Formats: sequence, structure tokens, C-alpha cells
Amino acid sequence: MERKIQIGICGYGNLGKGVASEIAKNPDMDIAAIFTRRELTDAPPGVPVARVGDAAEWKDRIDVMILCGGSKSDLPQQGPAFAKLFNTVDSFDTHARIPGYFAEVDSAAKAGNNISIISIGWDPGLFSLIRLYAGAVASEGATYTFWGKGVSQGHSEAIRGIEGVENAIQYTIPSDEAMERVRNGENPELAVREKHVRECFVVAAPGADTKAIESAIKNMPDYFADYDTTVRFITREEMKKDHAKMTHGGNVIRTGKTGDGNNQVIEFSLKLDSNPEFTSSVLLAYARAAYRLSAKKERGARTIFDIPPILLAESDPEDIITKLL
Amino acid sequence: MERKIQIGICGYGNLGKGVASEIAKNPDMDIAAIFTRRELTDAPPGVPVARVGDAAEWKDRIDVMILCGGSKSDLPQQGPAFAKLFNTVDSFDTHARIPGYFAEVDSAAKAGNNISIISIGWDPGLFSLIRLYAGAVASEGATYTFWGKGVSQGHSEAIRGIEGVENAIQYTIPSDEAMERVRNGENPELAVREKHVRECFVVAAPGADTKAIESAIKNMPDYFADYDTTVRFITREEMKKDHAKMTHGGNVIRTGKTGDGNNQVIEFSLKLDSNPEFTSSVLLAYARAAYRLSAKKERGARTIFDIPPILLAESDPEDIITKLL
Repeated sequence: MERKIQIGICGYGNLGKGVASEIAKNPDMDIAAIFTRRELTDAPPGVPVARVGDAAEWKDRIDVMILCGGSKSDLPQQGPAFAKLFNTVDSFDTHARIPGYFAEVDSAAKAGNNISIISIGWDPGLFSLIRLYAGAVASEGATYTFWGKGVSQGHSEAIRGIEGVENAIQYTIPSDEAMERVRNGENPELAVREKHVRECFVVAAPGADTKAIESAIKNMPDYFADYDTTVRFITREEMKKDHAKMTHGGNVIRTGKTGDGNNQVIEFSLKLDSNPEFTSSVLLAYARAAYRLSAKKERGARTIFDIPPILLAESDPEDIITKLL
Repeated sequence: MERKIQIGICGYGNLGKGVASEIAKNPDMDIAAIFTRRELTDAPPGVPVARVGDAAEWKDRIDVMILCGGSKSDLPQQGPAFAKLFNTVDSFDTHARIPGYFAEVDSAAKAGNNISIISIGWDPGLFSLIRLYAGAVASEGATYTFWGKGVSQGHSEAIRGIEGVENAIQYTIPSDEAMERVRNGENPELAVREKHVRECFVVAAPGADTKAIESAIKNMPDYFADYDTTVRFITREEMKKDHAKMTHGGNVIRTGKTGDGNNQVIEFSLKLDSNPEFTSSVLLAYARAAYRLSAKKERGARTIFDIPPILLAESDPEDIITKLL
């Protein structure tokens, strides 16, 4: 057997743990090391753990570094810094900042003779890919993206920041009615409020003013004010028992028109029991692509749109043509 | 504006007509000419019509030739012959013969300094692509493909070959129950009979033995014997009124497992009012990719798995990152 692809994992939160667990399902890959800023007590047995600051020492022992930090503060700094040292894959998802981030990672990767695939996961990621494919193969039409039912970490954290909130979780729920209208080819103009509703489960601190909390949530600009939002107060125990799974998913639907008004409906959906594990699994497939592109001496930053699908699959191309085409 | 991509259309049946109608939705393309073996009375106004045998004379006026003939007798001959002269895109779909066809087209395209993308459409085509992506991003799991509800030309023709049949149409219908079991993550072993049923509408010739026809259909090996098949006899008028649309579609579903038994369900579906128009529209997107690959001096045969998605879209890459990623 060929030498396995040596994967570095930078960051060991939900995503880093997902990468570590899913790597076993890819027989052509091994974990080289986990890089963290904390003391780790829960690293997989036998896997070296190193400091993020010492990563440069691992330059020759890692084929692809998967950056598992957050988009807010970790990746803007780590993305370019690591692209100088390693081939990288990340899940940068602050949409408005992607062009700037791409440019920075691109020059760093070129300077370091590396390849870096940015913004990988399912949205941005697989959903982006479907938006592109569907738009290209049905060029007259409209594309809609619905998210959920699933937990939004950003919205959950926004609630946790309200005075008197001990813990909170927020589910984004797509409107079945809106999705049906789209599938029927109505090409509806949908207001934000018509596409999704927001459902919040809150553990209030003892003695907190629940009316005030509910109002603070429902009127929070950007996060909740434009949506139909429900707020339910629950106990710590209920939170632990009923809301531990990080489920998510969504639908991309394009309704195209061809010929004399013929509807062509393209739909892609995900129903995920574990959002971080699935995202990790996608990151690993693109780590394989990064490794192969690097072997072909390709350099610089790439998005999911640039990557030939064949580079993701473990099997050899002839086998893929026989079994999948 | 840049010079438009000059598209040649070889064959003017349902698919060729679809390409001619959908090209108008792609502002970067023009029809250069239609090549046919018949006298055409229904070519679009102003479009040159030429003989298939005279195509070589058009070598310098066509950027990509779309081969719209059938997989049984046209493409095995035209695929390699045209790949020597032009960049080509085709929808070759005789699955067992794809590796051999690929090899022949590959040497012809290399000899002619052309690029040829084979087996494009929705299955083989977009469904193949989803099977590859889904398998790569959820590497432990099973993938299922369901077809329909839609017309199978091959099965319809098989019925038309039976003595006493004047006309016939066959719909392939996927089993909702089987799809639900797959979506629920049961990973069922499904017999052929459990996945699809076959529904046949037959116009019998005057005085024909309908019992004998029904039995001939239901017992036909390969085509019907392994399926639950219903046969209904209808009039010529009903055939014309109710069965003129070439609708089709289907679903690719992969249920993957991550971590400690978490289900990850990936589903892609198509609901097509017009199968040939949609296939044409897919062929045009890949003709754009062929043109761009040819401009980069790439040579030889490719499948849908080899093509970077970005090459399909008309817009420029920065715009795509901003709008679709």
C-alpha cells in the first residue's frame, strides 16, 4: 500500500474532534498530529499533540493541515499563516469576507509553494457547488436555499449574551409552504420571514425576568427581529436531555425553465444527525484533493468550484467510471 | 463583447432540437450549423444546415460539436470520427461500453488535438456526479439511485416491437416505500422488483389479441419479467392527448454514517417536464467547459468527473465566489 496522507488537525473543538473520528473511515489517511492552544485530555490514543505555535516544526511531516478553528478570530489569522507552511483546507464561512480571505491565503500559499482550499463544508461548500451546477445546467431560472431544521451556533450564542440567560439553543426551521411553492415552479419572491422561522429554547437564571428575555430575543436586530420567533423556557435537565444533538441540514432548490415553459426542478438536500461530523467528513475529502493537487505542483488558494470531482474519491478513476458513471 | 462560442449540432432529433432551443438561454453561445443525414424542414430560421458527411469542411468554424445521435448506432461511430475533427460533447449512455468508448474517443481526440467530454446528461451525468460527491464526503454508507416517474424510450420501443402493438409508452415509477426506507437510514437490500414498477400504455392494432400482448410484455426478459408491470390498453387519441410530454426524473440518495452511528442523508432529485430539453441544457454547459479546456490546450477524452465546476458557469469566477459560495 502507498504511504498514507498525513493529516494535521489544527484546533480540537467539535470540528477537530469530528476530523479525528472520521479519518478512520478513509483508509488512505492518518492523523499526523493535533495542534491546540490548550492542554488536551481527550486526544485519541497514540496521536501526538503539539502546540499551535510549534506547528512549523512539523512542516515535513504533514501533507495537509485541516484548520478547524472558528471563522471569527482563528481563521483570519491562521489561514494565511498556515498556508505559508502547509497545504491547508478550512471551513471559513464569514461570507462577506471570503474574497479578502481568499486573496490573503492565495498569496501566502503561493509564497509557501502550497495549495489551500478555503470555505469547505456544506454551506459554504456542497450547497455552493449545487447552486453553481444547477445554475449552469438550467440557465434560466431561480435558485433558493433553505436551512434547517438545525441549530444555529451564532443565534444560540446571541441569546446566551442576554442578561438572565443561563443557556440557550436556537433552531432554524425552513417553511414547508415556501419550499412547496418553490418546487411548484412559482418562482416566488420570498421575504426573509416567509422562508424560515426561529425556535429558541432558553434556560433562565434563577429569578431572571423571562418576559424581558423573550422580548430581548424577539426584538434583536439582524438575528431575530425579521423572523417569526418562538421562545420557550426549559430546565437545565431538559436542555441536556433533548437538545444535545447538533443536527442540521437544508435544501437547495432550483426551478429552471426550458423550451416552451417546461419546468425543470433540481433539488439537493441534507439531513444531518451531526453537523460537525459531516462538515469534518467533507473537509477530509477536500484534504485528499489538496494532497493530489499539491503532488501536481499546483499552488495558491482554491475554492470548491475549482476542484475536479475526481480528486475527492479514494478509488482509482477507472473504477469510478465503471461503478459511478 | 467577446466572440461567442460557435456550437455545431450533429443530429436533429429530440436532443438536437433541445440544444437548438436552449442555446438562446446562453448568451455566450451561437449555433454555427446543424448537421443531419435528412432533409430538414424544421431547422431554426437562419441556421445553416449541412450534411453529416460534409462536417470536415466546417472544422475552422466550429468551437464545439455537440453529438446528439443515439448511443446504439450513431455515437460508437461518430464519437471517435468527430473527436478527430472537433472538440465534442456527447451523451453516450450504454453503460457497459463506456470504458471502450472512452478509450477510442480519447485517442481520436488526442490525434486531432481536441477535447471530448463523453457521457453527459443527467444519468449518466449529474446523477453520476452526485454519486461521486456523496460517496466521497460520506465515505461509510450506501448510495441508491431511483428513476422516474418517467418515460423509458428503450422499454417503449421494446413494447412497440411486439406483434399487434400499434403504439406504446412505458413509465418507470420509483417505489415511495423503498425511498422512505433508504431515507430512514435502513440501508435496505432492495430487489429490482422493490425499487421500481413499470406502467405500460398500449394502443393495440385493430383485431389484435390484447391478452397475448399483455403476456408478451409482462414476461419479456430483462425489460419486464423482473418487475411488477401493469399494462393498460388505450386509444390512439388518448395516447396523443395524455402521453405526449417527455417527463422524467429521479433521486440519488446516500445514507452515510459518521461517529457513533449518526445518520447523514444526502439526496439529489430531478423533476423534469422535458427530458430531452434538460439533457440538452446540460450538454450546453459542458460544451462551455470543453471550449475553455481546449483554450488551455487540454487534449483527449474526459468524463463529467474530470471537469472543474467553475468551467460550467457563464459568469466570471469573482462574481461566482461572491454570489454562489
